[in-house]
Amino acid sequence: QAGLASYTSSYRTQHSTGCFLLRKVGLINRAVQLAILAYVIGWVFLWEKGYQETDSVVSSVTTKVKGVTVTNTSTLGTRIWDVADYVIPPQEKNAVFIMTNMIFTLNQSQGHCPELPDDNTECNNNSSCVPGYVSTHSNGIQTGACIPYNSSIKTCEVFAWCPVEDDNHIPKPAFLQAAENFTILVKNNIWYPKFNFSKRNILPTFSSTYLKNCIYDAQTDPFCPIFRLGKIVEAAGQNFQEMAVEGGVMGLQINWDCNLDRAASHCVPRYSFRRLDNKDSANTVSPGYNFRFAKYYKESSGIETRTLIKAYGIRLDIIVFGKAGKFDVIPTMINIGSGLALFGVATVLCDIVVLYCMKKRYYYREKKYKYVEDYELVSTSEGRMEAQLFPPLILKQDVQSPYHTQTLYRSCEEGLSSLERLIFTSKLLREALKTILCFLGNHS
Amino acid sequence: QAGLASYTSSYRTQHSTGCFLLRKVGLINRAVQLAILAYVIGWVFLWEKGYQETDSVVSSVTTKVKGVTVTNTSTLGTRIWDVADYVIPPQEKNAVFIMTNMIFTLNQSQGHCPELPDDNTECNNNSSCVPGYVSTHSNGIQTGACIPYNSSIKTCEVFAWCPVEDDNHIPKPAFLQAAENFTILVKNNIWYPKFNFSKRNILPTFSSTYLKNCIYDAQTDPFCPIFRLGKIVEAAGQNFQEMAVEGGVMGLQINWDCNLDRAASHCVPRYSFRRLDNKDSANTVSPGYNFRFAKYYKESSGIETRTLIKAYGIRLDIIVFGKAGKFDVIPTMINIGSGLALFGVATVLCDIVVLYCMKKRYYYREKKYKYVEDYELVSTSEGRMEAQLFPPLILKQDVQSPYHTQTLYRSCEEGLSSLERLIFTSKLLREALKTILCFLGNHS
Amino acid sequence: QAGLASYTSSYRTQHSTGCFLLRKVGLINRAVQLAILAYVIGWVFLWEKGYQETDSVVSSVTTKVKGVTVTNTSTLGTRIWDVADYVIPPQEKNAVFIMTNMIFTLNQSQGHCPELPDDNTECNNNSSCVPGYVSTHSNGIQTGACIPYNSSIKTCEVFAWCPVEDDNHIPKPAFLQAAENFTILVKNNIWYPKFNFSKRNILPTFSSTYLKNCIYDAQTDPFCPIFRLGKIVEAAGQNFQEMAVEGGVMGLQINWDCNLDRAASHCVPRYSFRRLDNKDSANTVSPGYNFRFAKYYKESSGIETRTLIKAYGIRLDIIVFGKAGKFDVIPTMINIGSGLALFGVATVLCDIVVLYCMKKRYYYREKKYKYVEDYELVSTSEGRMEAQLFPPLILKQDVQSPYHTQTLYRSCEEGLSSLERLIFTSKLLREALKTILCFLGNHS
Repeated sequence: QAGLASYTSSYRTQHSTGCFLLRKVGLINRAVQLAILAYVIGWVFLWEKGYQETDSVVSSVTTKVKGVTVTNTSTLGTRIWDVADYVIPPQEKNAVFIMTNMIFTLNQSQGHCPELPDDNTECNNNSSCVPGYVSTHSNGIQTGACIPYNSSIKTCEVFAWCPVEDDNHIPKPAFLQAAENFTILVKNNIWYPKFNFSKRNILPTFSSTYLKNCIYDAQTDPFCPIFRLGKIVEAAGQNFQEMAVEGGVMGLQINWDCNLDRAASHCVPRYSFRRLDNKDSANTVSPGYNFRFAKYYKESSGIETRTLIKAYGIRLDIIVFGKAGKFDVIPTMINIGSGLALFGVATVLCDIVVLYCMKKRYYYREKKYKYVEDYELVSTSEGRMEAQLFPPLILKQDVQSPYHTQTLYRSCEEGLSSLERLIFTSKLLREALKTILCFLGNHS
Repeated sequence: QAGLASYTSSYRTQHSTGCFLLRKVGLINRAVQLAILAYVIGWVFLWEKGYQETDSVVSSVTTKVKGVTVTNTSTLGTRIWDVADYVIPPQEKNAVFIMTNMIFTLNQSQGHCPELPDDNTECNNNSSCVPGYVSTHSNGIQTGACIPYNSSIKTCEVFAWCPVEDDNHIPKPAFLQAAENFTILVKNNIWYPKFNFSKRNILPTFSSTYLKNCIYDAQTDPFCPIFRLGKIVEAAGQNFQEMAVEGGVMGLQINWDCNLDRAASHCVPRYSFRRLDNKDSANTVSPGYNFRFAKYYKESSGIETRTLIKAYGIRLDIIVFGKAGKFDVIPTMINIGSGLALFGVATVLCDIVVLYCMKKRYYYREKKYKYVEDYELVSTSEGRMEAQLFPPLILKQDVQSPYHTQTLYRSCEEGLSSLERLIFTSKLLREALKTILCFLGNHS
Repeated sequence: QAGLASYTSSYRTQHSTGCFLLRKVGLINRAVQLAILAYVIGWVFLWEKGYQETDSVVSSVTTKVKGVTVTNTSTLGTRIWDVADYVIPPQEKNAVFIMTNMIFTLNQSQGHCPELPDDNTECNNNSSCVPGYVSTHSNGIQTGACIPYNSSIKTCEVFAWCPVEDDNHIPKPAFLQAAENFTILVKNNIWYPKFNFSKRNILPTFSSTYLKNCIYDAQTDPFCPIFRLGKIVEAAGQNFQEMAVEGGVMGLQINWDCNLDRAASHCVPRYSFRRLDNKDSANTVSPGYNFRFAKYYKESSGIETRTLIKAYGIRLDIIVFGKAGKFDVIPTMINIGSGLALFGVATVLCDIVVLYCMKKRYYYREKKYKYVEDYELVSTSEGRMEAQLFPPLILKQDVQSPYHTQTLYRSCEEGLSSLERLIFTSKLLREALKTILCFLGNHS
């Protein structure tokens, strides 16, 4: 009897100690599950909108530049510049180039003339010049003669478009510095094929009058599709007059991220601007953006002449991007499914924590085996009546726990959260007490 | 003995009720697993082709337009238009512009002339005109004078390319209305880098004769790479003659979705057409597509003149997209793996359903504990022989069930599906009957 | 007693046979888990860099071609060609076209002339020619007259730009065959928006001198941004002189894959080259790349003339792609999470293997039930002392196994791997032996 009594008392002690441990395990398990739930609901559903099907934007962009300016130079005289003069080529897909500066070489014709002086082309006599020689930086093909370039310098003669271009001095300030006030109308139509949703950046609420007079401004007119060139450059943190001299590449980004579960009127473009080429002091090698083109003329004598223009300017790349989302059953199901699958992680993590990481793991393990032993002794040695009195919940609680740790957490966890389990737990304790008293009374 | 007998009979009753419940649980579990299997096989493997590695298309597009037309106007006389006249610029990447309508301003030269009349430029006397004033819509810079535009209207004088363009009246029908019959040869080469698979839209089966004479038609010639401009516009649900007047942007989409597990000859382009800009009555602000360009001439006197052309037309954007798939071990393994992982969901869902959602859950829970009790009583009070007779399957079925619900479903589920388990179940019932009879006979 | 003894001995036998099986199951389970671990660590983390957040490249490209060449033909005389002559249009987004061959038609003016002879246009008399007839391949509109094309052939007269172009004979070798030595400077700026990391392909280490003289070479100068046109074509496995005759489309691919966890200086462009259009003998229909453009002149008489040029050449598409990765907590957590979730697969796979695939499954199943029986007999028939002696580990090992296969693998698996379990196993065997001896001694 004494042996049994000691077992029972040890049972009681172990039970409470065990339950303290179980409570810990339950808390860990619950924390992991909460973290997974927070991830699934917070990240997957709210942040990433996992319940929506998404589609990428299909877009078309057309641009129209407006603005005129006048220049006054000794070579050209007073000259007016309009859109047909400074937009080259006249139309491009998703881009527009606006000339802001240039180096003219008027009245070039094919012939012989001195090369532009540099280390390789300067010469003293004909022996320095190789007939037929062409280098990467040549303007033409050397004839072998050495002729005066100006009063002080002699250079090799070349067969080229003469006179050769001298691009050593870039006009400063920029020739077309008034380009700062040119405006660009950007017409952008987007389409989300999956949802057959299309919209243009000229919003339906715009009146014809508004469209004729508005200018984009991030604060006051964030949806006006007409941009002042100077403002675009400024919004990208650049200085227009500096950029105009050597040219550059600007990006006009149009973001069409839309939640199509909301009204279509909430789907509006957001504009942003950045300089796409790099302009910093560390990278002064070959800065800016320029190219050469020519206008060809035929003299009445039949000789072809041309005006060569080295054009510096701003190329505006219009970059349209965006993603639309709309509720759809399939991604919702898939995300709920894989979210639930993640709950399996809780068990694995708890196993790891309980069996390998918790400080009192050895104690805990021993406990598990002890329970079984205790229970067996009790159920074996007692008669039918006692067994009957022995409350089923104790059986469940204590017998199943050692057999399977997972069930153990679950019981404990339930005990932690629901009122029902709380009542059961109190019942359990009461019944256990009753049984033990009954047992002691029987055998004393 | 009576107590025992009542237990046994209650056991019998509970067993059948329990098994009805178990059957339900098994069915739910099975249904969830079937849904997962259907998702994995049907959606992941068959629909999304999860066993394939995929690659995105790399493509190059070149276009060639053909067609001539003649126009007869008072200003230009009879004039022929060929490809070098109406394609501007002569080559573009993945796009081509075909001029369909235009407003000419011949023989412009820099000088002074009256501005186009509108609200801002009409004037009565010089005081209305500000020297140096330029607005967004100006054609030039005001000189400050007010001069007659025509016999009735006076406008401010400007320094500009004179005479200024008058674009108030768009020719209707379109000037080059015959553009409807122009044809566009689209040469498209695609490459799937991962599979080193390349193909062109001029299929190897085409003969030179076929290619010279075919015209794309969705029904009769779906693979002919030569498109009639009118047909493209029509296929997009638009009216060509209407679109030709103010211009627009058309998308020619080439879809190269290919299953490279099949023969290469099955990998063929699919063409579709849509209008990319928006043409509807609600958005009449700034419709269509146009731009200005100029042809520059030099008079024998040395004065530069130009012909300014406001070109309306159809820009055709060629959009190539597609995804190729080919069987590969890695995605197959990954998809099978994550498919299997989803099976873990079945257990979690069943737990939730059984423990929280099923109507008779309290009954079910109690049942579980009862079984343990019953079993213990029987196995404890009986001798060796009875225990031996007690069939192992009952032990398994009833003992393990309460300890772990998962195993419980599994047993039940197996019983529902496989012939073997059916036989076992019948055996179980026979053995259970035998045991009970034996037991009663022993104690009576 | 004999019955009990036979049970015990059978228990011993079964235990060892069982453990052999358990060992197998444990090995399978372990192998599956190792495979999953290898996949998660090797594939997801090391290969796919699952611990990094990634971003796609935003880029801008500008090009500048350099080079001059001279040609000498009877129609044009000696003529120099520079960049303004052979780059058409003068600037394009992400592309550049370099003319390498051409067919000139000088001094075209609108008028009447014989059509180019082919099957449809050759005629004997006016009745063969339909006034107003235009076909896809026409150069103009038929007037209805049949006039001599040359001394032997008569063709229908057309109203067209006259004389009509004769493009039957492509110059061979290419007119501008020296284009092989032209160089292209490609300026490419990239930006990774998420990491605000930008870089250009002109590396900061380049000196101005290096940049003026270097030419890209895969071995010696892999980072020089100046490319020789001939080398690009050669690197793509093509013959430049062949390609120059009929033209083609070349792709210059710039790969900016960067691991931003390393120093920025490791983020460098990698160049590769391929021909984007298809040039093989099987596809001789419409090879190469060409287009037509015209230069317009105005005679002093006011008549507009033009030089029509059918330009063959190389279009260089610059394709920039790349992905940058940088360590980030969120993808790391997500990938660890889903990696752990995959461990659930181990259990499912083991269940499948054990219950359905293993050869001795029936034996194994029976075994499971036997254990329970054995154990019950032992624990039931013996007194308290024996039960006490009966080692807890046996209880755990043998009792829990049949109830839940998962726990069974886990025990076995632990036994296979950890020293602790090994000691436990040895203890178990010793205790089991002790118990049996004690039991036999008690009952003999």
